[in-house]
Amino acid sequence: MKLGFVGLGKMGLSMVENLLEHGHQVVAYDLFADIVRAAAEKGAVPVSGLEEMVAMLDAPRLVWLMVPSGDPVDKTLSSLLPLVERGDVLIDGGNSNFRDTLRRQRELDQKGISYMDVGTSGGLEGARNGACMMIGGDRNEFTTLEPLFRDLCVPGGYGYMGECGMGHFAKMVHNGIEYGMMQAIGEGFDLLQNSGFSYDHEEVARVWSHGSVIRGWLMELVAEAFHKDGGLGYLSGEIADSGEGKWTIQTALDNGVSIPVIAGALFRRYRSRSHDNFSDKVVAALRHEFGGHGYTEKTEKK
Amino acid sequence: MKLGFVGLGKMGLSMVENLLEHGHQVVAYDLFADIVRAAAEKGAVPVSGLEEMVAMLDAPRLVWLMVPSGDPVDKTLSSLLPLVERGDVLIDGGNSNFRDTLRRQRELDQKGISYMDVGTSGGLEGARNGACMMIGGDRNEFTTLEPLFRDLCVPGGYGYMGECGMGHFAKMVHNGIEYGMMQAIGEGFDLLQNSGFSYDHEEVARVWSHGSVIRGWLMELVAEAFHKDGGLGYLSGEIADSGEGKWTIQTALDNGVSIPVIAGALFRRYRSRSHDNFSDKVVAALRHEFGGHGYTEKTEKK
Repeated sequence: MKLGFVGLGKMGLSMVENLLEHGHQVVAYDLFADIVRAAAEKGAVPVSGLEEMVAMLDAPRLVWLMVPSGDPVDKTLSSLLPLVERGDVLIDGGNSNFRDTLRRQRELDQKGISYMDVGTSGGLEGARNGACMMIGGDRNEFTTLEPLFRDLCVPGGYGYMGECGMGHFAKMVHNGIEYGMMQAIGEGFDLLQNSGFSYDHEEVARVWSHGSVIRGWLMELVAEAFHKDGGLGYLSGEIADSGEGKWTIQTALDNGVSIPVIAGALFRRYRSRSHDNFSDKVVAALRHEFGGHGYTEKTEKK
Repeated sequence: MKLGFVGLGKMGLSMVENLLEHGHQVVAYDLFADIVRAAAEKGAVPVSGLEEMVAMLDAPRLVWLMVPSGDPVDKTLSSLLPLVERGDVLIDGGNSNFRDTLRRQRELDQKGISYMDVGTSGGLEGARNGACMMIGGDRNEFTTLEPLFRDLCVPGGYGYMGECGMGHFAKMVHNGIEYGMMQAIGEGFDLLQNSGFSYDHEEVARVWSHGSVIRGWLMELVAEAFHKDGGLGYLSGEIADSGEGKWTIQTALDNGVSIPVIAGALFRRYRSRSHDNFSDKVVAALRHEFGGHGYTEKTEKK
């Protein structure tokens, strides 16, 4: 198939390479000209703007967006909207909030543009060699585009989730589950580390990756991390988050669904970034006030 | 190799079958004579008691226990102890608490009996076709027994954890992680179920099993469960637990390790079995007392 591809970041460029290898024609654009050149070297048709891209595509046009969620998606869509026509198809393959996706779909629908939301998982390796895609939007459009999804994913690794919004919603929940699973794994190794026994974490993670109930890609990845450094001495314990866990909890609140483990995993991440935590200070102060219990004096300068 | 095998339950009988298929000679015993007959039909040498079993083994003898944790292990060991000799090897392949294992090892060590603790994961399918084993005990003994572990496990699915106790400790932590991962998966599907969208849970779990970050055996198993019934209408939401999650949390308390997600997952299981929960009644009563808020009247008879 022939398609335009907007956004050649870590994920986007790898997906473009994968598409080219599968014989698709990709017209590639990014805000940064040097990444466009990198895509051209792989065999993509480079363009210096969206107008040029759209001019190179035949109706009905297909444009895949792989840009950061939020404003970048809205800006790209505003620029594309005057250029595309009724019957064209836009795909958002990024990590957009499903509420944004629903709003955008309503706007694009009025112009007769078909909007597909594709939640993409599998990390950089997946983008390059076969990802997992949760696809929302019109079912007929999904069927038309299926060869593209088949080529971008591992066998069995894509599926039609339902109407527009359901792709990104499923990806959001996927990431929520991921938070909980990662935290459970982290806690388990913390217990091994503080067991009084001397475990080889890499060996444990390797064994657990083969035949155990908890085997899976996350366990394989933690084995690789321990292979580099069994004590993970090269990094601090501060954990960032990129928003999807937060959206999962916000959605659970909106819908009255109890997800204590997923919520706990995100709160644990917040806590991991909070040094000399204020709630801890309050509790330490209270212990001192009512029971005269000692506290650790603050010695460092603020 | 030639070995005695005590305990032919769901896991034990499948392991015996696997051992026989790999050319090992198994002298099989269980409290229930009909299961011993079943093992004999598969090719094991049936015995009607431990004395008969030990008499059929050559020194140094090897006996694999696959009996329920707790008293059954202690009783089996007490019966075996007068029968075995210095240099013999006993393996506990069940889900024993590592503290019991350490105590038993001290006792057996005084008689010169080598005690190995093997944490076994992979469920019934693993027992039959290749499991995952976390092995504690003497390293030389491990090396001697390695052909056995290799045949019982999937490729790469066994490993020497360290001194006696470390096999069962690792299995305990494995199960703790499993509790957290399962709870995260459960919460995620609950959110899909109550999203306002109409998801095909089987399709979601199938897609997530191929190429996603959260792919793994648990996701494949939940896809199978949804294949049987997308709404899981055939079962109630009461979740049992078989003790290893509890031991994980007890150990975390002993060692001062914070494992909120694993603990939360076990507490969620307790809650799942508690109908008309008393803490909920207390909170509902308090809301009524201070704010005059309504409560749901109890109508059913106790």
